[in-house]
Amino acid sequence: MTTALPPEAAAAAERTRREVCDLHAELPRWNLVTWTSGNVSARVPGTDLFAIKPSGLSYDELTPASMVVCDLDGTPVDGEYGPSSDTAAHAYVYRAMPEVGAVVHTHSTYATAWAARGEAIPCAITAMADEFGAEIPVGPFALIGGDDIGRGIVATLRGHRSPAVLMRSHGVFTVGKDAKAAVKAAVMCEDVARTVHIARQGGPVEPLPQEHVDALYDRYQNAYGQRRQHP
Amino acid sequence: MTTALPPEAAAAAERTRREVCDLHAELPRWNLVTWTSGNVSARVPGTDLFAIKPSGLSYDELTPASMVVCDLDGTPVDGEYGPSSDTAAHAYVYRAMPEVGAVVHTHSTYATAWAARGEAIPCAITAMADEFGAEIPVGPFALIGGDDIGRGIVATLRGHRSPAVLMRSHGVFTVGKDAKAAVKAAVMCEDVARTVHIARQGGPVEPLPQEHVDALYDRYQNAYGQRRQHP
Amino acid sequence: MTTALPPEAAAAAERTRREVCDLHAELPRWNLVTWTSGNVSARVPGTDLFAIKPSGLSYDELTPASMVVCDLDGTPVDGEYGPSSDTAAHAYVYRAMPEVGAVVHTHSTYATAWAARGEAIPCAITAMADEFGAEIPVGPFALIGGDDIGRGIVATLRGHRSPAVLMRSHGVFTVGKDAKAAVKAAVMCEDVARTVHIARQGGPVEPLPQEHVDALYDRYQNAYGQRRQHP
Amino acid sequence: MTTALPPEAAAAAERTRREVCDLHAELPRWNLVTWTSGNVSARVPGTDLFAIKPSGLSYDELTPASMVVCDLDGTPVDGEYGPSSDTAAHAYVYRAMPEVGAVVHTHSTYATAWAARGEAIPCAITAMADEFGAEIPVGPFALIGGDDIGRGIVATLRGHRSPAVLMRSHGVFTVGKDAKAAVKAAVMCEDVARTVHIARQGGPVEPLPQEHVDALYDRYQNAYGQRRQHP
Repeated sequence: MTTALPPEAAAAAERTRREVCDLHAELPRWNLVTWTSGNVSARVPGTDLFAIKPSGLSYDELTPASMVVCDLDGTPVDGEYGPSSDTAAHAYVYRAMPEVGAVVHTHSTYATAWAARGEAIPCAITAMADEFGAEIPVGPFALIGGDDIGRGIVATLRGHRSPAVLMRSHGVFTVGKDAKAAVKAAVMCEDVARTVHIARQGGPVEPLPQEHVDALYDRYQNAYGQRRQHP
Repeated sequence: MTTALPPEAAAAAERTRREVCDLHAELPRWNLVTWTSGNVSARVPGTDLFAIKPSGLSYDELTPASMVVCDLDGTPVDGEYGPSSDTAAHAYVYRAMPEVGAVVHTHSTYATAWAARGEAIPCAITAMADEFGAEIPVGPFALIGGDDIGRGIVATLRGHRSPAVLMRSHGVFTVGKDAKAAVKAAVMCEDVARTVHIARQGGPVEPLPQEHVDALYDRYQNAYGQRRQHP
Repeated sequence: MTTALPPEAAAAAERTRREVCDLHAELPRWNLVTWTSGNVSARVPGTDLFAIKPSGLSYDELTPASMVVCDLDGTPVDGEYGPSSDTAAHAYVYRAMPEVGAVVHTHSTYATAWAARGEAIPCAITAMADEFGAEIPVGPFALIGGDDIGRGIVATLRGHRSPAVLMRSHGVFTVGKDAKAAVKAAVMCEDVARTVHIARQGGPVEPLPQEHVDALYDRYQNAYGQRRQHP
Repeated sequence: MTTALPPEAAAAAERTRREVCDLHAELPRWNLVTWTSGNVSARVPGTDLFAIKPSGLSYDELTPASMVVCDLDGTPVDGEYGPSSDTAAHAYVYRAMPEVGAVVHTHSTYATAWAARGEAIPCAITAMADEFGAEIPVGPFALIGGDDIGRGIVATLRGHRSPAVLMRSHGVFTVGKDAKAAVKAAVMCEDVARTVHIARQGGPVEPLPQEHVDALYDRYQNAYGQRRQHP
């Protein structure tokens, strides 16, 4: 399944493979994945390609070389392994949302519990307003194997502030401008899913007022973190 | 308790011991076991033998040499230690289910919680349909020390898609074509037991429609992972 | 606070200090303790002394030399540090229960949650029947600083199969013939406290019938593990 | 943003930076933080300065040099990075409470769950009476970016025994005489938030009587730990 890439694309693919491989380590680190489940992909800059986890390999086995480079139809064009069985969903998102640079998928426990009930996570704590700017919405139930999952992700996230969607009875997909942002969204999604779940076990939890959500989201998106690169 | 095995069987037993020993590390890694509880066994290919964890040793102490080789009556034929107190149950399964190559037993928390209530885990999320293809069923209460546990496992799993059974008020037994498959089933059983439990804490959870379970199970069993060996 | 011990007692104290120090590592390993809380003590064989954790040191700082040797009144007789603030309770148990060789104390989460409600843990799973042979009972509320805690432990555990007691609104004390047995009881106490708690969240949980508890307890105490020492 | 400090202040700032950097490691160790959230600050002795975490850096990246030294208005006076977005709240506490030597902020799961409901944690277990001497109170909802959070912390903690406050719908702030004490309070706050939450899931939990809380608090604050320095 290997096709020779032009040298510049090959070099870019190599860098993306390394970045995607490295960021996969965050998934077990934050307890978002079990056995071989979950995957990260990212666009290869300057190409119509993306790199994604191979199917069914354990997180310990992943290397940059084992990442699979696919075109935007989800067809592998470079790599020794077959790509994630979720590749079609990732590819659909890249085709439909040009602003998205990376996609992450997990079955993280608390987020998937909300997904199993088909219930959106209300925006009830400031950390959630910061990162998601809204409730985390539920997408439709869709079977794997075609464009249904990708279509459901895009229909739910387009025009929504949240970079995370709870796919009904399935798990989480997150998007980001790059792989780190999409992984962060997956990590924070599980964190707020857990906190709001536990909060509700003890009694009613009110969502934050919309004006507070707006103020928090605006500030976090524009003023948090380092404004410039540091040594 | 050591009997001299023919050289070919001895070599096969050696390989199985190593594999079984290595896979025991997955049980504490995925938080399925406490102190010395839990065990993995696997058939020795080309023989009527299986290798199993020694009784009461901690996971840190396990070595290939400490694994105990037993015949299909559960009688130790090679090894320095006495075998797991669950050996009779493993042996019964091997006698009754020739297609089974390995057996795993744990008291993992969430699965055992379902077992304590005697309640099957409904097939409510796609990851569960993929791996189990059905609800995870409950087997009868049975006392340790004879064939009752083994009989209960076999009566519940024979003809069932699920490779896992929740033995009433006890814990989980899983089976697989090899040790890795049985360990994976034990890991995924706890994962879905936890997710569905947490989902239900927040409100009613509907099982997936049967046709979706069938489609997901069929695809996962036949299309997931790598089709061929890779370097 | 150091007194010169006779050479034989000093050598025995040295061995006990090492054993007690080493077994403290099991408490954070199994997530039973937070910050500096929790402690293990064991009798020094052939003496009327025991070794216990120093007060307020973190688990990372513990060394055999930092363990404090006390007489059975709880008075330190050897060691650079002051002993655990729970020393009086340990000492009372050693004075009142000559069969006890070691004592462990933790505030492990799930066991302490049962203790906060003053509710005994029903014997509802086979692993609990194996290790505890009964419900895990609740002892009285008692303030630290005198013999009240020790008296409450002894009054509750004397004549009871369970090596663990939930001290009301406080935490767990376990006893054992040696330090390893007492630590194992603390580890298993938290494990069954968690499993039975989670089981009950999903619906009613029936205790095991007494005859099953008796059969399981008898077998586990007499047939589990290795009968002889191994290389 | 670097200003030259007088040599003595520079040396003190260097020591504080190292201490604050080291204590940040306790936050992920005790699972209090997710991704880059949470922060520790401490006064630089003999100056009107404090050192705090840089904004948006991961815990793996922190070094003493990356800590940011600020004046008591929260303006950075030394450091390569921009300070935590919570710096204004820390600075307000230092200006208003001269007895406070350090401040810690987290969104730890269970404490934040109580904060999301705006419910104080009742003082129901002895470990909580020891460390907090009272319920853990709730402070007002306040938006980030001015003095509102700091004002809410100070209004709630001034005259209260508890070194921890649950800021409404947000998370935890703790104070201490030094960085270790404030970090300990954050660790223990999450521990008791979790234990009391889980206790209440199983039925009603009574707070301890006030005279018991008083006795426990007095003893722990005055008799726990080592009275003198040890080698």
